[in-house]
Amino acid sequence: MSSVLLTDLYELTMLQAYFEQRMNGHAVFELFVRKLPPHRNFLLAAGLAQVQDYLTNLRFDADDLRWLRADGRFTPEFVDSLADFRFTGDVDAVPEGTATFPDEPILQISAPLREAQLVETRVMNLVHYETLVASKAARSVLAAPGRLLVDFGLRRAHGAEAGLLSARASYLAGFTGTATVEAARRFGVPAYGTMAHSYVQAHGDEARAFESFARAHPENAVLLIDTYDTERAATKVVELAAKLAADGLAIKGVRIDSGDLGEHARRVRAILDAARLTGITIFASGNLDEYRVRDLVAQQAPIDAFGIGTRMNTSADAPFLDCAYKLQEYEGRPRRKRSEGKATWPGRKQVFRQYAPDGRLGSDSLTLATEAHPGTPLLAPVMRAGRVVAAPPALAAVREYAGAELARLPQRLRSLDAADPYSAEVSPALRRLAADIDART
Amino acid sequence: MSSVLLTDLYELTMLQAYFEQRMNGHAVFELFVRKLPPHRNFLLAAGLAQVQDYLTNLRFDADDLRWLRADGRFTPEFVDSLADFRFTGDVDAVPEGTATFPDEPILQISAPLREAQLVETRVMNLVHYETLVASKAARSVLAAPGRLLVDFGLRRAHGAEAGLLSARASYLAGFTGTATVEAARRFGVPAYGTMAHSYVQAHGDEARAFESFARAHPENAVLLIDTYDTERAATKVVELAAKLAADGLAIKGVRIDSGDLGEHARRVRAILDAARLTGITIFASGNLDEYRVRDLVAQQAPIDAFGIGTRMNTSADAPFLDCAYKLQEYEGRPRRKRSEGKATWPGRKQVFRQYAPDGRLGSDSLTLATEAHPGTPLLAPVMRAGRVVAAPPALAAVREYAGAELARLPQRLRSLDAADPYSAEVSPALRRLAADIDART
Repeated sequence: MSSVLLTDLYELTMLQAYFEQRMNGHAVFELFVRKLPPHRNFLLAAGLAQVQDYLTNLRFDADDLRWLRADGRFTPEFVDSLADFRFTGDVDAVPEGTATFPDEPILQISAPLREAQLVETRVMNLVHYETLVASKAARSVLAAPGRLLVDFGLRRAHGAEAGLLSARASYLAGFTGTATVEAARRFGVPAYGTMAHSYVQAHGDEARAFESFARAHPENAVLLIDTYDTERAATKVVELAAKLAADGLAIKGVRIDSGDLGEHARRVRAILDAARLTGITIFASGNLDEYRVRDLVAQQAPIDAFGIGTRMNTSADAPFLDCAYKLQEYEGRPRRKRSEGKATWPGRKQVFRQYAPDGRLGSDSLTLATEAHPGTPLLAPVMRAGRVVAAPPALAAVREYAGAELARLPQRLRSLDAADPYSAEVSPALRRLAADIDART
Repeated sequence: MSSVLLTDLYELTMLQAYFEQRMNGHAVFELFVRKLPPHRNFLLAAGLAQVQDYLTNLRFDADDLRWLRADGRFTPEFVDSLADFRFTGDVDAVPEGTATFPDEPILQISAPLREAQLVETRVMNLVHYETLVASKAARSVLAAPGRLLVDFGLRRAHGAEAGLLSARASYLAGFTGTATVEAARRFGVPAYGTMAHSYVQAHGDEARAFESFARAHPENAVLLIDTYDTERAATKVVELAAKLAADGLAIKGVRIDSGDLGEHARRVRAILDAARLTGITIFASGNLDEYRVRDLVAQQAPIDAFGIGTRMNTSADAPFLDCAYKLQEYEGRPRRKRSEGKATWPGRKQVFRQYAPDGRLGSDSLTLATEAHPGTPLLAPVMRAGRVVAAPPALAAVREYAGAELARLPQRLRSLDAADPYSAEVSPALRRLAADIDART
């Protein structure tokens, strides 16, 4: 998944044109979101670690060059020139886990034009998806304080990488773990698992299935109890618990995956509690998202853990962000795209954040990078001359920081419902620059 | 992206329990969609080629085994047993590109229980996403007969694999090509490219940008004309065309990416035609999907080609399918899940399709695999004893077949609007079997 050809053809056709014109001046591109989807009051920036990795390892290998030569679309001289292609530029970015808003650059790439151009597609692909998922997952985190939330979504994620990156992004946003084993290996996200209906069905006898599973995983068994009749299964769990206790073993939890989850959870809790099995936790899953989780929490359903899959990692109510990666400066001169409905703020920029007396976000200002302004600058150097100068923090540290960011959001933005938008005010100098450019062209 | 650990943890915890019980009887699992999303009248099956590849190469390598040992969740004996793990089972499937409907198995895996169970997550991940995208892309194909449709979506696809597989799935469904270079290399999908706004902005002067690009790509230049003022840019294209003609060169097309695409296309067409540049094609892009394409076609907008990206490859109006992979038979005995709202038809099944006198789909029947029934059986053998017995056809052949399938759809199902649903009738024998199982348990 790290092929340099993981890019749009036009990046390469533009590169060939630049090559022929010997055009490769210093360019500044910024990645930002134009506007938020409905039902998003903030975004959590994510994906920077993967971008740093991508830029560090970017090169055309022999197979890539051979394919480009054989394709016939490119000149041999141009293809030969790609053998030495490396990313030698600078990257500034807001740290992963930072709350971010429309028009605020999340990432800024300053590099020779060809390098900054070629990386457009994959850099967007990474930052867009992880930011999308972190922002969606954060909503479940806000809706279910103190509950255990597990990513269950690999099977309906959009391909393998979506499954892996959504495990990372949702953990970063405050989820407790993931069911995806490869994400546990690759990113160190804690792995969680229960059992499938097929396990019960293969045994035919539900009680026998529960017992064999509990004995195979003496500390960790979470038994799925909705294959036939949820409450009848709960009574089988009670019987099994007594039998296991005689051997010094215990059951960790039960999972309910269908029907009225709140109602079943209440009945199952009552059955378990009547047998003094108060330590057995209840795990709920099945088409969950932040809205259903909020309702279950509001009903005080006795659910300890939620498995949240498809709707989270496809960001089902808003499956994409209106993001862009735009040239803002070339050879020291600010640039501005003026396409209808898609005009951008020109020049290399910075975002300054000021906090209210209670520690929550007060106001953001979008300024030129050269302006002095009160507040904390959000964009900071992460790569210089193609080398990482600020290594990605450990994922657990990013997760802690993201939690602090969520705590700093004004109360209205923490709601699942659409709130009065928070947005950066644009500095007078930046507005003047935009007007100057418009007047000149 | 082929790691065997690209799976849910519960697949492995179940496998360990099966290992300890020495339980590994013959199991039949089926993958199907429970119901269609709103605004989908049919699905096009896709992803089978990737599944065959996955199953053929499935194994635990030394790193996988080391990680599982170190994780501490599994017994050393169980992890050791995985060293020899291979997929040795049978696969029956409906061919890629086949129109398919709720409850109809798309894929059937008959294998020793542990093998059939372990592959659940990744098999679903592949078939779900490609089927989702092929089904979405087919709608644009139906909405824009005879137009050139190009996948533009890598940048906002959900990760790299989604970008690659959506290029494949949309081509299979009738798209003309993709902008994603790696998909061209890997799947042979024709690659298309234009230029970005940054190209124009970097040059500052639009006319100079157009000329340099056209000279770098003498046969293929598609010039992006909406960076500043679309119609003014079109007049620059006219001037450039005259200049290039003197050198025996031509411009292939122009692209419009913002504003009222139909209105701009009409004005640009008039400007080009007035200069007798009738051969220059007009390419439109920008937040397109089948609905907008349908409107532009209905308006008779003079648009020759559509670049369709994000909304297609995220299937934005229905970003997931309600699909399942369920155990239907174990050790020769049919099984049935009865969870509320999620009950399944038991046993190993077949779908028979009968056609109407006009060649269109007439009726589908869902039967037991052992039943004789009139019509064409849709599920056919593709793997036996772990080996491919029906290699995936060339992608171009699948695309042609999918086109024939779209032509065979009843007219009402070809509409973008929700139509009276088409669904398989369930055979009396299958209904009796379900009732028998319910009575017995």
